[in-house]
Amino acid sequence: MTQIACKSLIVQKFGGTSVGTIERIQAVAERVIEAKEEGKQLVVVVSAMSGETNRLLGLAQQIDAVPAERELDVLMSAGEQVSMALLAMMLNKMGHAAVSLTGWQAGIKTDSQYNDANIIHVDPSHIQQLLERDQIVIVAGFQGITDEGDITTLGRGGSDTTAVALAGALNADECQIFTDVDGVYTCDPRLVPQARRLDVVHFDDMTSMARNGAKVLQLQSVEYARQHGVPLRVLSSFEEGEGTLVSFESSAASDVVGIALKNQQTLLDVDMPVSELQEQLNLFGMQCWCKAVAADLTQIVTANEDLARLKLVLDKKMHQVAAVSTLSVVGNNVQNKVDHVCAVLAEAGVLVRQKKRSAHCLSLLINEDDHQLAVDVVHKRFVVEPESLDNRPLLAVS
Amino acid sequence: MTQIACKSLIVQKFGGTSVGTIERIQAVAERVIEAKEEGKQLVVVVSAMSGETNRLLGLAQQIDAVPAERELDVLMSAGEQVSMALLAMMLNKMGHAAVSLTGWQAGIKTDSQYNDANIIHVDPSHIQQLLERDQIVIVAGFQGITDEGDITTLGRGGSDTTAVALAGALNADECQIFTDVDGVYTCDPRLVPQARRLDVVHFDDMTSMARNGAKVLQLQSVEYARQHGVPLRVLSSFEEGEGTLVSFESSAASDVVGIALKNQQTLLDVDMPVSELQEQLNLFGMQCWCKAVAADLTQIVTANEDLARLKLVLDKKMHQVAAVSTLSVVGNNVQNKVDHVCAVLAEAGVLVRQKKRSAHCLSLLINEDDHQLAVDVVHKRFVVEPESLDNRPLLAVS
Repeated sequence: MTQIACKSLIVQKFGGTSVGTIERIQAVAERVIEAKEEGKQLVVVVSAMSGETNRLLGLAQQIDAVPAERELDVLMSAGEQVSMALLAMMLNKMGHAAVSLTGWQAGIKTDSQYNDANIIHVDPSHIQQLLERDQIVIVAGFQGITDEGDITTLGRGGSDTTAVALAGALNADECQIFTDVDGVYTCDPRLVPQARRLDVVHFDDMTSMARNGAKVLQLQSVEYARQHGVPLRVLSSFEEGEGTLVSFESSAASDVVGIALKNQQTLLDVDMPVSELQEQLNLFGMQCWCKAVAADLTQIVTANEDLARLKLVLDKKMHQVAAVSTLSVVGNNVQNKVDHVCAVLAEAGVLVRQKKRSAHCLSLLINEDDHQLAVDVVHKRFVVEPESLDNRPLLAVS
Repeated sequence: MTQIACKSLIVQKFGGTSVGTIERIQAVAERVIEAKEEGKQLVVVVSAMSGETNRLLGLAQQIDAVPAERELDVLMSAGEQVSMALLAMMLNKMGHAAVSLTGWQAGIKTDSQYNDANIIHVDPSHIQQLLERDQIVIVAGFQGITDEGDITTLGRGGSDTTAVALAGALNADECQIFTDVDGVYTCDPRLVPQARRLDVVHFDDMTSMARNGAKVLQLQSVEYARQHGVPLRVLSSFEEGEGTLVSFESSAASDVVGIALKNQQTLLDVDMPVSELQEQLNLFGMQCWCKAVAADLTQIVTANEDLARLKLVLDKKMHQVAAVSTLSVVGNNVQNKVDHVCAVLAEAGVLVRQKKRSAHCLSLLINEDDHQLAVDVVHKRFVVEPESLDNRPLLAVS
């Protein structure tokens, strides 16, 4: 074993805002060089410059509202090709040898589901050769290539997935996701200013947070990282700091790790037995939270963006009941806290319409109008002052 | 042999202005469909949308006046990736199956001279498969890939070269270069409004025209087409018409086919023997028109854009004599016309500083200030009214 084989290998990912201008690309280069000068091997995944994706999409939509899907991927993938080349130029200008690679050059093989492809294999040999020559390797996020040699894009959050997949294939020591927040918070800090940054969060909890509305990391990339045992770190592109490490360790001070919120959902009554409804939804590849209310009546919850599609399937059998939000309490043993949480919400006058429990998550369906009040009180009682919770008198659920 | 094997195969090339807006891309698609509906197999080469190359170069130069050359090619090649995808989308939208290919997908292998690469091999198998499936194949001009898998660009006029190289490799019936003029003229019609379009021009003459300043076709692509026996046709992107066919036939009505002009040159005196000077220029890979004037004095002609470089090499030994132009008379037996041409110029009061003859070209060095007058009289006497020429009295050269 040579010394080089012991060098730690880091995959860093910078999103579109982080590479949105030449000045920001310079700031990214400085972050990269900082890590390089600590003796690390570096692979850097970049998204397209912010605005570029929309510009390209705008050109396509001047031609066709639904452009040919293969060609849309050819078009969109040009976006990262620009940002990756600019970052490599900047690093070279600053005295550090760097080479940029497109998805196909980086060995990222996908299925041929254009616009929403899945990575099926990563061949890291080309990147490894370049790392051995002491190059910083810049890789286009969000894109890959099929076995037939066609360009694909990975769909929403695709650059995170690229970074995690590369980190897995390269057996990297850490995959660092640089973003516009400085870590994972106990709740979205734009909603709850008292939310605090977590130093460490367990993969189980992060998966539940991402699945239930936390936007800091995409669910797909968290699941991929977990599966491949790649420690993930969320950091700010704009500030120094340790960020949040997502790993199999946990340092939660209390059972409740965080609160996630999903808005823009609708509660519907559907005049159909639950089994028949689920069968129909499966046929169209749709998944909803379903609950039998009567033999011929089922309540379902759907994202507002799926309403139009659902209307095509169910037509007059569906009736909108309310605009709703899902508030999720994530952590260990939260399934035992149903009554506590419901009591706190009742005390604040928030109606709980439905409840769902899983190993690391307790989800409650509330009216959308109540979402701010609900996250405020639940975050305060279960995250800010959890120790005092067990001493508080319990109110009966009204 | 099936019927399909007998289908004629055309390679069409559209430049940046022709694909500069969505409306123009639609006009290009209409031209392509017209040919397709005549039963032809079509490969369409496109440049980047006009303005895009400069936009990308501008981004690079915000980072580095001389950006890392490998990365500059990665950056610039994104330009054609956008235009090719948009044209393929447009064709699909208009009901014709079309697929776009980057340089590497189209099998265009180059050497690794970044920013100015040469095509060394074209593997047309992927394109052929797509043509057999009745697809219109759109290919990115101006780009290729090295044996090591790195992206390259071909430098100036590269998209024409791509088209000609593909036409050669595919054994195409014709390579059609669509541009902003409707063919090859006897002289640049912006200079000489009486210039007329040629229906046919011989490869020998076209090579001389391109080498001596005619901008309608790049020298490299004419030479490549000649070498591979690919008939070239120059057509307007914006008007209907037959354009000009460049082939091994010739239908010139007279010996003189056309007049080419090269401006923005400088005549210099250099205090150095001609052999020593040529040795120095060779060392720096520069080529100039040199003429020994005395044992220690050589006159050379250089493009103004090379002056700064030349100054670095020759420093105080070079002295600028005059701003000059080269006027070239192209055609059969033009070397016999030196005295005729010089007499016509002398009659008009144009000083001829130097003369150079080759098989298909007679080039005369004149003062730049005289260039308009010189092309006017030479075009009039030798192209517009060549029959009357031999009957005119010859004036002695003053």
